[in-house]
Amino acid sequence: MAMFQPRDPAYDSRVRGSFARQSMMKLLGASLDRVAPGEVDIRLPFRAELTQQHGFLHAGVTTSIADSACGYAALTLMPPGAAVLTVEFKVNLMAPAAGEAFVARGRVVRAGRTLIATSGDVFAVDGGRETHVLTMLGTVMTVKNRSGLSD
Amino acid sequence: MAMFQPRDPAYDSRVRGSFARQSMMKLLGASLDRVAPGEVDIRLPFRAELTQQHGFLHAGVTTSIADSACGYAALTLMPPGAAVLTVEFKVNLMAPAAGEAFVARGRVVRAGRTLIATSGDVFAVDGGRETHVLTMLGTVMTVKNRSGLSD
Amino acid sequence: MAMFQPRDPAYDSRVRGSFARQSMMKLLGASLDRVAPGEVDIRLPFRAELTQQHGFLHAGVTTSIADSACGYAALTLMPPGAAVLTVEFKVNLMAPAAGEAFVARGRVVRAGRTLIATSGDVFAVDGGRETHVLTMLGTVMTVKNRSGLSD
Amino acid sequence: MAMFQPRDPAYDSRVRGSFARQSMMKLLGASLDRVAPGEVDIRLPFRAELTQQHGFLHAGVTTSIADSACGYAALTLMPPGAAVLTVEFKVNLMAPAAGEAFVARGRVVRAGRTLIATSGDVFAVDGGRETHVLTMLGTVMTVKNRSGLSD
Repeated sequence: MAMFQPRDPAYDSRVRGSFARQSMMKLLGASLDRVAPGEVDIRLPFRAELTQQHGFLHAGVTTSIADSACGYAALTLMPPGAAVLTVEFKVNLMAPAAGEAFVARGRVVRAGRTLIATSGDVFAVDGGRETHVLTMLGTVMTVKNRSGLSD
Repeated sequence: MAMFQPRDPAYDSRVRGSFARQSMMKLLGASLDRVAPGEVDIRLPFRAELTQQHGFLHAGVTTSIADSACGYAALTLMPPGAAVLTVEFKVNLMAPAAGEAFVARGRVVRAGRTLIATSGDVFAVDGGRETHVLTMLGTVMTVKNRSGLSD
Repeated sequence: MAMFQPRDPAYDSRVRGSFARQSMMKLLGASLDRVAPGEVDIRLPFRAELTQQHGFLHAGVTTSIADSACGYAALTLMPPGAAVLTVEFKVNLMAPAAGEAFVARGRVVRAGRTLIATSGDVFAVDGGRETHVLTMLGTVMTVKNRSGLSD
Repeated sequence: MAMFQPRDPAYDSRVRGSFARQSMMKLLGASLDRVAPGEVDIRLPFRAELTQQHGFLHAGVTTSIADSACGYAALTLMPPGAAVLTVEFKVNLMAPAAGEAFVARGRVVRAGRTLIATSGDVFAVDGGRETHVLTMLGTVMTVKNRSGLSD
């Protein structure tokens, strides 16, 4: 695991402030669990409203928390004033998303000047046991000087 | 564009029934627009509850409707009794998801015995003008004889 | 299909010159078939040296010509002096790469300021019949002012 | 890191035998470095014939060794007689592939009945220092009872 040096000392409150503005996270019922340089964890309790036709969490739900975790892991390393934008990602859905709760762990793999490669994993938690349900590999962009966009 | 021959004559009602059981689609406010062999379109009006921190639709939302459109495009070609499962997908987020409404178009690219390659596109609709905001490439699995799983 | 306006009138000779410097294309035996704004086709005859353990072309070979086709499709739209760099791509291998020859078609899906989304397809040609063996979705970067890098 | 139990006691010689039949690996000059349950490493010395227009290894080359490493990592866990087939993969190219040699490390992330999720990483080695140049996330299929296909 690489060690990262944040360029904005206020990275923690910055990520928390931006997360609080993601209405979608509120709609899902997700919360920010942990923020560290290059690492963000998001937690989501199971809810029947979030399921697909077989009763598991919809792939779009586990993808949503993985994408936010990866994007915010990247934001912890960005200079003040820059905005985070997801360019693309790929997910493998490795097991049905069944469980009491879900934890998404986003990590920075390599931080370039403009583009940041990230990886994410979602685990289903059930009775204290974790199952690896999703793995993500993505690309996040550092956007500067675009009017109206920050964090 | 390939021409596909459905193996289940009831493919249309089967897709519509399964879509109706996706609680997540109801939560988002999405509706099934069109069902044809190898093709499914899903429509979603803009809602502020679905946004990320900059006020655009969260990538997880556009991904959700693209994934459902691709999965159901694949289901139109499956034999009776089989269940549809998303194996993996990749998306490129090419423009901010801003607009009055969004249309996801899922298409089968190639249908193998077990695995079906699919592509999806999401367009933002605003004042009659369409902007291409997301493109997806994914893999869907035909699952047979797994207890409790169908459609 | 989008219509693209090249920003460099010499885009054709620029792409052909850069392709000629890709030693890997020579090693594979690939040739540039067609160059147009946002579109590049590459052709590769079958050779037993390029195969995997079952006698089909190795996935890395079909991926190589798809990546070059996508990158050069993007280069046709770049301003003079900029260099093309592949950021990432995803491929689906939909059928065994068996045939007399292979054609990779790279297309620009959407051209942003810095990032260009591309799609590619590889077809196996055998006795006049084409089989769709690979589909690619990727991201290419326009790199400016990096010492020593152009085209 | 998960611990895996091989289902074929002869997994090592089986992987080595199949690798020896991949003509493409010979053309590239790649060799099998290490075989363990769920893990395969491949080594490739730099050669000018393998480069793109800027003198770095072509993305298709680093992708080729990552794909073979991932596929063979999956093959170590397959039952006797089954054949390995790459379904799809995605790569992020995080730094120019410049160096004296390259090491691809393929790992099984999760092994299902039919599909195996794999991850791979390629490092450039130069003067004893490793640079992470590529990361791969892919899907491999266990193919049984298909005439003529094994390993």
